Amino acid sequence: MNSSRRTFLKTTAAATLGASLLPSLGFSSSADEKLRLGFIGVGLRGQNHLELALSRKDVDVVAICDVQQRMIDMSLGLVATAGKPKPQVILDGPNGYKKLLDRKDIDAVIIATPWEWHTVMCLDAMNAKKYVGCEVITGMTVEECWQLVNTSEKTGMPLMMLENVCYRRDVMAVMNMVRQNMFGELIHLQGGYQHDLREVKFNDGVSPYGGGVEFGEKGFSEAQWRTQHSVDRNGDLYPTHGIGPIAMMANINRGNRFTKLVSYSTKVRGLHEHIVKTGGENHPNAKVKFKLGDVVSTLIETSNQETILLQHDTNLPRPYSIGFRVQGTKGIWMDLNKSIYLEGQSKQAHRWDDAKEWLEKYDHPLWKKYGNDAAGAGHGGMDWFVLNAFIESAKRKIAPPQDVYDAVTWSAITPLSETSIKQNGASIEFPDFMRGKWQNRKNTFALDDTY
Amino acid sequence: MNSSRRTFLKTTAAATLGASLLPSLGFSSSADEKLRLGFIGVGLRGQNHLELALSRKDVDVVAICDVQQRMIDMSLGLVATAGKPKPQVILDGPNGYKKLLDRKDIDAVIIATPWEWHTVMCLDAMNAKKYVGCEVITGMTVEECWQLVNTSEKTGMPLMMLENVCYRRDVMAVMNMVRQNMFGELIHLQGGYQHDLREVKFNDGVSPYGGGVEFGEKGFSEAQWRTQHSVDRNGDLYPTHGIGPIAMMANINRGNRFTKLVSYSTKVRGLHEHIVKTGGENHPNAKVKFKLGDVVSTLIETSNQETILLQHDTNLPRPYSIGFRVQGTKGIWMDLNKSIYLEGQSKQAHRWDDAKEWLEKYDHPLWKKYGNDAAGAGHGGMDWFVLNAFIESAKRKIAPPQDVYDAVTWSAITPLSETSIKQNGASIEFPDFMRGKWQNRKNTFALDDTY
Repeated sequence: MNSSRRTFLKTTAAATLGASLLPSLGFSSSADEKLRLGFIGVGLRGQNHLELALSRKDVDVVAICDVQQRMIDMSLGLVATAGKPKPQVILDGPNGYKKLLDRKDIDAVIIATPWEWHTVMCLDAMNAKKYVGCEVITGMTVEECWQLVNTSEKTGMPLMMLENVCYRRDVMAVMNMVRQNMFGELIHLQGGYQHDLREVKFNDGVSPYGGGVEFGEKGFSEAQWRTQHSVDRNGDLYPTHGIGPIAMMANINRGNRFTKLVSYSTKVRGLHEHIVKTGGENHPNAKVKFKLGDVVSTLIETSNQETILLQHDTNLPRPYSIGFRVQGTKGIWMDLNKSIYLEGQSKQAHRWDDAKEWLEKYDHPLWKKYGNDAAGAGHGGMDWFVLNAFIESAKRKIAPPQDVYDAVTWSAITPLSETSIKQNGASIEFPDFMRGKWQNRKNTFALDDTY
Repeated sequence: MNSSRRTFLKTTAAATLGASLLPSLGFSSSADEKLRLGFIGVGLRGQNHLELALSRKDVDVVAICDVQQRMIDMSLGLVATAGKPKPQVILDGPNGYKKLLDRKDIDAVIIATPWEWHTVMCLDAMNAKKYVGCEVITGMTVEECWQLVNTSEKTGMPLMMLENVCYRRDVMAVMNMVRQNMFGELIHLQGGYQHDLREVKFNDGVSPYGGGVEFGEKGFSEAQWRTQHSVDRNGDLYPTHGIGPIAMMANINRGNRFTKLVSYSTKVRGLHEHIVKTGGENHPNAKVKFKLGDVVSTLIETSNQETILLQHDTNLPRPYSIGFRVQGTKGIWMDLNKSIYLEGQSKQAHRWDDAKEWLEKYDHPLWKKYGNDAAGAGHGGMDWFVLNAFIESAKRKIAPPQDVYDAVTWSAITPLSETSIKQNGASIEFPDFMRGKWQNRKNTFALDDTY
């Protein structure tokens, strides 16, 4: 694909600007080519993507990079199981990824490293002319978000944040219904990340989930790095799963944008109590002072005058729930009670319908086409779709359906919510990362069954 | 009861200050006396209370007052059906209620008039030394709230806002669980008023609900006055049903208080679209510009560092839901999906239990004792309990379980949310209506099965 680099840059830059090159137009001449893919970070999340990539005929995994032998070994096991050629292995400390980026024959990279490494790795990868797919949270500060935008615009290289919940089956069906005006004009939306992560944030240093109350150097997997953010920061630390799908439905960056937000945080109890209960009050981590409020609630306003509620709730015992709500002038969906109400169409006035029949009726074309391929992939199949969208976009050398503007717009909620809380509940203006270009861009996300 | 006026004032003033006279201590010597009750406002809501009062042996309804013959006639019908003596009828314009207050033999009054009349009527009633029960929304401005507090403190006369949802059976069971520490330390709470009121705000001038798109002078019942608030104001116009129960669980005004709030509002669509759809685009009301956002979301912070989310949503098609959530360090209840999760006690980790079995197990003593009496009363029986609490308190001449401070604290959310929206999402400091006395007051609301 190096021979087509100039075309690549040209079409990508145009597509990034939005209007002329729609993903759905496709570039079938290159869609049949094989994509040469490198992996930066093959921890447990990277391995999910790796396993899916290895199962595809249109991808050659040519290099993997990590900082831990155990993760490399697990990854090579996946390669062997898939019967694929062994990729180059780079195990050379935190900057080893630069060696992977030095390889001119790599078209695209998947980045699945701790959040704090995402920005620098994305910047380096775009500057190395790689098509970039990065795990969620791209930009931990507003300044980092701007760096990502500016570098993507300067290099012409796309950045897709791999937000998988945009591809959840019920979410895509509801998006389909939104586009067919079943809910009328959108008024209010909700999402969040309400997930008891206590056994993710703490483990025994061997198992990924629980079994102890270690984190940082003594922890394993996400506990090694993710937990420290709960020590240092207070805000909505993980907004993208909730906001991504809602943003797509509300045409954010496509005729609409976030204008301001405000966050309120509760007291800090859950993590400390978990440590004391599980590890005893004499465990050294019982002395750690956490900063992250147990529940952080954020209200966002859009330029089209919708409101959005986001809730971050990861330190307390509770069943998992994104907490979606999509409400318009004609009806409402809520995922907590798996219900839909549509005026004049639901069976009874003022009574919920079971969402099931509606979601089946409006199943998205992509799921109809690829549901079998996705079966068994991570997180109920949505991981298959997000990786597929990335690979198909990269093969076609066009802008990905979720682009750098989406990546930073969704990620910037974290630092803005931190600022709002620090400023005692002040409303914070949202940066316009598209510098006005959102006004005329059309929404082309998952318009049909292409990818 | 006039002979005991001095005792009344003394005990009430002490009880208002909180610590010494607990409602549960009772004053059985006077609990057997009959209460002489007057009704200011016998519209449809007043008639609910009237019917319940007429069914009691411990109440004499001695006077009723309204501004409409139709409401007086309906009320006299209820009196006749109950076989009770005909009360004095006062039908003498908007200030006719003062004649009712002039009667020295009336111990207590129930006020069930349009919101904008509540403050002046409560003030006049307290100044006339009546024990006051007023329908929800007591104080439309912060200034009115202070007038109510100051007048209650000056006169020693109690004001109870008749917030019935505090007595909903599931709410009381959850409060019972909160007090037994089943949810651990409270962290985050939610409530609201999510009720499609389009057929309350508009009717044909004859039926109370729907059948046309008239309001104001051409409307009937609530449409005559309530709808105008949607024309003139933008904020959480009806916070008390959601906040009352939560405030009681979180010991607001009893060791805890609201410290600040912020509100975001959506665009304004629902009411206009309803008029056009139902009455046609040429109906004169299709020209009315409404100010109330279709969904208003409010975040509140407490001095104990809980957060509370309130949602006001009355202009769109949707099933009714208060949207309660009570979440602590050990578990969570949500009413939307009728579910409870308690760490280590629920059947499966990370999975909801049906709330039913928990709510039955922790059924509140009041409901166990009076459930049969309440059966058939309005709003699932809770109307019986709130009126009972008012009457039992008035008979015992003690502070009501929901007092003037609760009334204004809950009602003040409306003007404060209006200010927040006007100030583009600024956080607004909450007034301390108890001037610090909340710090040492104990929660005595519904501690047992007394009332």
